[in-house]
Amino acid sequence: MTASPFDHPFLSGLLGDDEIAPYFSAEADIRAMLFFEAALARAEAAHGLIPGEAARKIAEVCAGFSPDLVSLRSATAKDGVVVPDLVKQLRAEVGEEAAKSLHLGATSQDVIDTSLMIRLKAVTFLFAGRLSAILTGLDTLERRFGGNRLMGHTRMQAAIPITVSDRLDAWRAPLATYRDRLTEQSFPVQFGGAAGTLDKLGPQAAAIRASLAQELGLTDARQWQSGRQPIADIAGLFSSISGGLGKMGQDIALLAQAGGEIELSGGGASSAMAHKQNPVSAEVLVSLARFNATALSGIHQSLVHEQERSGAAWTLEWLLLPQMAMATGASLRLAKELIGTIKRLGTA
Amino acid sequence: MTASPFDHPFLSGLLGDDEIAPYFSAEADIRAMLFFEAALARAEAAHGLIPGEAARKIAEVCAGFSPDLVSLRSATAKDGVVVPDLVKQLRAEVGEEAAKSLHLGATSQDVIDTSLMIRLKAVTFLFAGRLSAILTGLDTLERRFGGNRLMGHTRMQAAIPITVSDRLDAWRAPLATYRDRLTEQSFPVQFGGAAGTLDKLGPQAAAIRASLAQELGLTDARQWQSGRQPIADIAGLFSSISGGLGKMGQDIALLAQAGGEIELSGGGASSAMAHKQNPVSAEVLVSLARFNATALSGIHQSLVHEQERSGAAWTLEWLLLPQMAMATGASLRLAKELIGTIKRLGTA
Amino acid sequence: MTASPFDHPFLSGLLGDDEIAPYFSAEADIRAMLFFEAALARAEAAHGLIPGEAARKIAEVCAGFSPDLVSLRSATAKDGVVVPDLVKQLRAEVGEEAAKSLHLGATSQDVIDTSLMIRLKAVTFLFAGRLSAILTGLDTLERRFGGNRLMGHTRMQAAIPITVSDRLDAWRAPLATYRDRLTEQSFPVQFGGAAGTLDKLGPQAAAIRASLAQELGLTDARQWQSGRQPIADIAGLFSSISGGLGKMGQDIALLAQAGGEIELSGGGASSAMAHKQNPVSAEVLVSLARFNATALSGIHQSLVHEQERSGAAWTLEWLLLPQMAMATGASLRLAKELIGTIKRLGTA
Amino acid sequence: MTASPFDHPFLSGLLGDDEIAPYFSAEADIRAMLFFEAALARAEAAHGLIPGEAARKIAEVCAGFSPDLVSLRSATAKDGVVVPDLVKQLRAEVGEEAAKSLHLGATSQDVIDTSLMIRLKAVTFLFAGRLSAILTGLDTLERRFGGNRLMGHTRMQAAIPITVSDRLDAWRAPLATYRDRLTEQSFPVQFGGAAGTLDKLGPQAAAIRASLAQELGLTDARQWQSGRQPIADIAGLFSSISGGLGKMGQDIALLAQAGGEIELSGGGASSAMAHKQNPVSAEVLVSLARFNATALSGIHQSLVHEQERSGAAWTLEWLLLPQMAMATGASLRLAKELIGTIKRLGTA
Repeated sequence: MTASPFDHPFLSGLLGDDEIAPYFSAEADIRAMLFFEAALARAEAAHGLIPGEAARKIAEVCAGFSPDLVSLRSATAKDGVVVPDLVKQLRAEVGEEAAKSLHLGATSQDVIDTSLMIRLKAVTFLFAGRLSAILTGLDTLERRFGGNRLMGHTRMQAAIPITVSDRLDAWRAPLATYRDRLTEQSFPVQFGGAAGTLDKLGPQAAAIRASLAQELGLTDARQWQSGRQPIADIAGLFSSISGGLGKMGQDIALLAQAGGEIELSGGGASSAMAHKQNPVSAEVLVSLARFNATALSGIHQSLVHEQERSGAAWTLEWLLLPQMAMATGASLRLAKELIGTIKRLGTA
Repeated sequence: MTASPFDHPFLSGLLGDDEIAPYFSAEADIRAMLFFEAALARAEAAHGLIPGEAARKIAEVCAGFSPDLVSLRSATAKDGVVVPDLVKQLRAEVGEEAAKSLHLGATSQDVIDTSLMIRLKAVTFLFAGRLSAILTGLDTLERRFGGNRLMGHTRMQAAIPITVSDRLDAWRAPLATYRDRLTEQSFPVQFGGAAGTLDKLGPQAAAIRASLAQELGLTDARQWQSGRQPIADIAGLFSSISGGLGKMGQDIALLAQAGGEIELSGGGASSAMAHKQNPVSAEVLVSLARFNATALSGIHQSLVHEQERSGAAWTLEWLLLPQMAMATGASLRLAKELIGTIKRLGTA
Repeated sequence: MTASPFDHPFLSGLLGDDEIAPYFSAEADIRAMLFFEAALARAEAAHGLIPGEAARKIAEVCAGFSPDLVSLRSATAKDGVVVPDLVKQLRAEVGEEAAKSLHLGATSQDVIDTSLMIRLKAVTFLFAGRLSAILTGLDTLERRFGGNRLMGHTRMQAAIPITVSDRLDAWRAPLATYRDRLTEQSFPVQFGGAAGTLDKLGPQAAAIRASLAQELGLTDARQWQSGRQPIADIAGLFSSISGGLGKMGQDIALLAQAGGEIELSGGGASSAMAHKQNPVSAEVLVSLARFNATALSGIHQSLVHEQERSGAAWTLEWLLLPQMAMATGASLRLAKELIGTIKRLGTA
Repeated sequence: MTASPFDHPFLSGLLGDDEIAPYFSAEADIRAMLFFEAALARAEAAHGLIPGEAARKIAEVCAGFSPDLVSLRSATAKDGVVVPDLVKQLRAEVGEEAAKSLHLGATSQDVIDTSLMIRLKAVTFLFAGRLSAILTGLDTLERRFGGNRLMGHTRMQAAIPITVSDRLDAWRAPLATYRDRLTEQSFPVQFGGAAGTLDKLGPQAAAIRASLAQELGLTDARQWQSGRQPIADIAGLFSSISGGLGKMGQDIALLAQAGGEIELSGGGASSAMAHKQNPVSAEVLVSLARFNATALSGIHQSLVHEQERSGAAWTLEWLLLPQMAMATGASLRLAKELIGTIKRLGTA
């Protein structure tokens, strides 16, 4: 059941990412949602909204809870979101007393959006590390081949000679920017309640939200349930990263085609031509860049998010953003591998 | 490992499709690829290119072969395509003699594109059936409520009264067109060899291709390995279908919001508001329409398919088309369900 | 005032099209809209709905009418469509008696969509002619260089030798398909009245619409005011054409970069490097293909066309389709020129 | 010659922007390009690279030069860029001696990209002002109607009552972010020479670039001729702005449809229904948001910018970015007008 190459038994070898994929598993999502419910209970207890005992019970259950997935699936089919059933299952588990304190003042979107942010924050941290490794790899190439001569090409024609260093700078400069942006990216908690007004929390609403954010390691921010710029920002950054790597991939594929100025180890086999060494990862970097560029359009379509919560616009994000993260992850993984296969760049 | 909602343990309840998903599983792909190799061997034997005995052996092995998936995955990572390793595994299984006759004159793209067409043909057949069922459902609504009065709306304003029949016509007309197009859609075999010239097959190349197509129930056609209109046609049709259903979904969501002119059974629960009945499927039809409209752009980007075979453009298709099929399937499933929940339309 | 390169004082030299642009001028649109009003009057008179004298008067005025553009502009700002003011101006001109018979039973969308179809039909006819000329140009290359040798490239690597004829076939096959599709493309009249029901025309509605279609040389069809597949079909075909030509452009740019297998006359100058001959049109074919692939996504978004008429979805088409036509026109023009500059292809 | 509604004789009343359009005229582009050449000469003279006299002559001529547009157009057709011919015309005008100092070390892309940045900086300044005015308009609504009751809607269903203030906050929050981003947006000079290495400027290259940037009021930055993130950033911000306004437009259109909670003055006429008052600008805000969301995809496709300069990727930007700016401008203009027409919001 694997329409997506990112999760596919054999295509994931090429297009997947074993380190990033777990963050978009149902298990990780559920774990992060339970983390939200536990943190919310603690924050509400800290502000006297619910009994400390209830918060403890909720946190304890959330730590080890394994929901009935079959039930979650059929409930999601009906409700459009997994949360009502998850909360129902949790309520049964925490007991009647704590049940009243569970999910108090929250709505499905709070849980789902916050779970996403928790996981995106972790993924983004890994991406920054990968970009650093790529930059280090490019630095190594710089030291080894920076002084080599390379024919500069403009408009698909030989222009004037440049150095390998010049080309490496062109690859590196945007990637360094993206690494900094990944580091600076903020991940806001989402907490708004039924219609974004935290109507059940009274005057302490803002303080509880701040405590919740702190519990979760997220940025405290006004609810953004119908203002989806945080999603658009992250998607735009992901697409920029894969775009910058796609440019490098395209350049390497063109170098490999011309032949004289690059030497790569490895390269893919052909079922028809035993002699070929295809620059597979270089090409796939282009595919992933174009995939993200395509998907980004849908994320911006979902900025037209009507009223207090749009099922249509929100669900569209689910169809696009996790896979943009996967494409970015695969892109970073392949770029790092590809750089490692460069045995020579330019001519001495 | 489920970045795609189409394959997700609980989101697939909403966005997946149990009948369509199996066609995009690795198992189905492998089965169809083996089907290709067996049919190719038979076609080549029928034209005297390989021994009949070899063809029989190949067909026999293909019928029951279970490849080593771990090996396929790591080979795909390296080769960019699964076929070289699959063929290698198959060669080991059919024995040294038949091995020489296996995959003769074919290339990876022949196997992969043809496998896709075999499965798309089956899927499309199911889609046509679903569209027929939806049209039948709309006919039923017509009989029950066609004479009812409905306020016509233009530019988000009440315009003049129309009948329910008028609105149903607007939903039905494009869907009927799509059903006919699904029925007429051709699914061409892909067979070109290393560089599209069937260079190893000599003067019988065209005849062998025709036999192969017939074996597989596909249309005989010149190779289209760098001319991807067949993919663009199918993707365009899929996006049109989900677009037509998205229009119906949007209309129903607007009717549900206004309240007086539609009565729906079911509807989704809210974790924050017990009184709500959300028109979940109506909204999700809009999401799926916008998803396909987004993805279609990437498919058309991949029409810029350089030279005899572009790894970049081709891989981009893999990232988009199967999920467009899934989105279309889910869209058809939800539309059928949604129509079934309409208890009243218009006012008497 | 030229944000669009298609209409730009100097960029249009590269990206415009002097033959196609006039069809998307305000003048041509107005002329076609007046043509609609005259034809409608004649059709309604033929069926006895309005006096023959009124129809004659209307037709006579429409033939020579020059509306006040300043008034049209400010009215469009307010009404969102040009038609109410145009009809108002026309009513003043035809006199009080005929005024009652003008635009009878029609709505703005009828006039605007039909005007578009009238012009798209003409443009499409020109496109088919251009594709024929391109195919002829490719046939000439075939005769001159078809037997030459060309290195086949797959996945950006030299694969096996092919002939120039093989490559030309790969360019030609989709283009021949598109030419046939252009020829077969139907252009439906749009006529539905206020809410698509032709509510003011009574039992003769269908007959009047058929007469109207015939007057205008368009296909008679049920109103499609909220079912925008005719627009999606034409946009899809345009994007396919520019995609097929973009593939050819990409191939030629890659040949020009490699250098040995193609000789081009002309080519663009560089402000920094006097020695360069850039394959400008080859590159621009890629740009135009990607432009149309991008825009097609928006056209499919507008399939989600709510209720009886969506101002939002309809206006989105206006922002995209005319420029897709221009991009296709420019693409065809450049492709024809580019083929004419090929002095040698392949090696003897 | 007006395929683009932004420049159209009557559609521009709705979709154009009289204040923004001039920045994307050929005249403004030429003026900014001449500004670049003059500033470059001054910067190079300041660093002793060219004679001060030559710089004065160049600056004097650039201040008043009117190029031959017919020649520019036909040269652009051939060269793919306007600069070689513009420089040729300028050289003839400044005289043989200064001609040697004109455009020294620069390439077409330096001139064109920098001209764009000069104009985008001015446009962005205007956009920030408009966003401020919109925010002020929303503040006014807040003061007048903030305490009114509004039915909160989630998933197209009445949820719980909120206040007008809550809804206004949801509109305002992203817009305030965008205004800040517009203010902080940097606009880098582009100066790289033939292949990005400023090969003709020697050790003073960086100092000259810094002077050039200062002369032009732009940010000094390493050349970004093949690293197009500055373009992607601006395009992303534009699409975010129109997305945020599109959300407000969609909300207002839905309020207008429901009827009781909003009162608008003005509104568009219908050619078929005299009684209607269409919320035209609200709808068009949605169209413009979806237009920019669509176009953004193409801008990200052009991040795959091969080698030192890609004619294909660069030209694609020209086809998209100016119109994204126009769409954003129109969106801001319409949003401001729309807010001004709100006579009542919510119920007391």
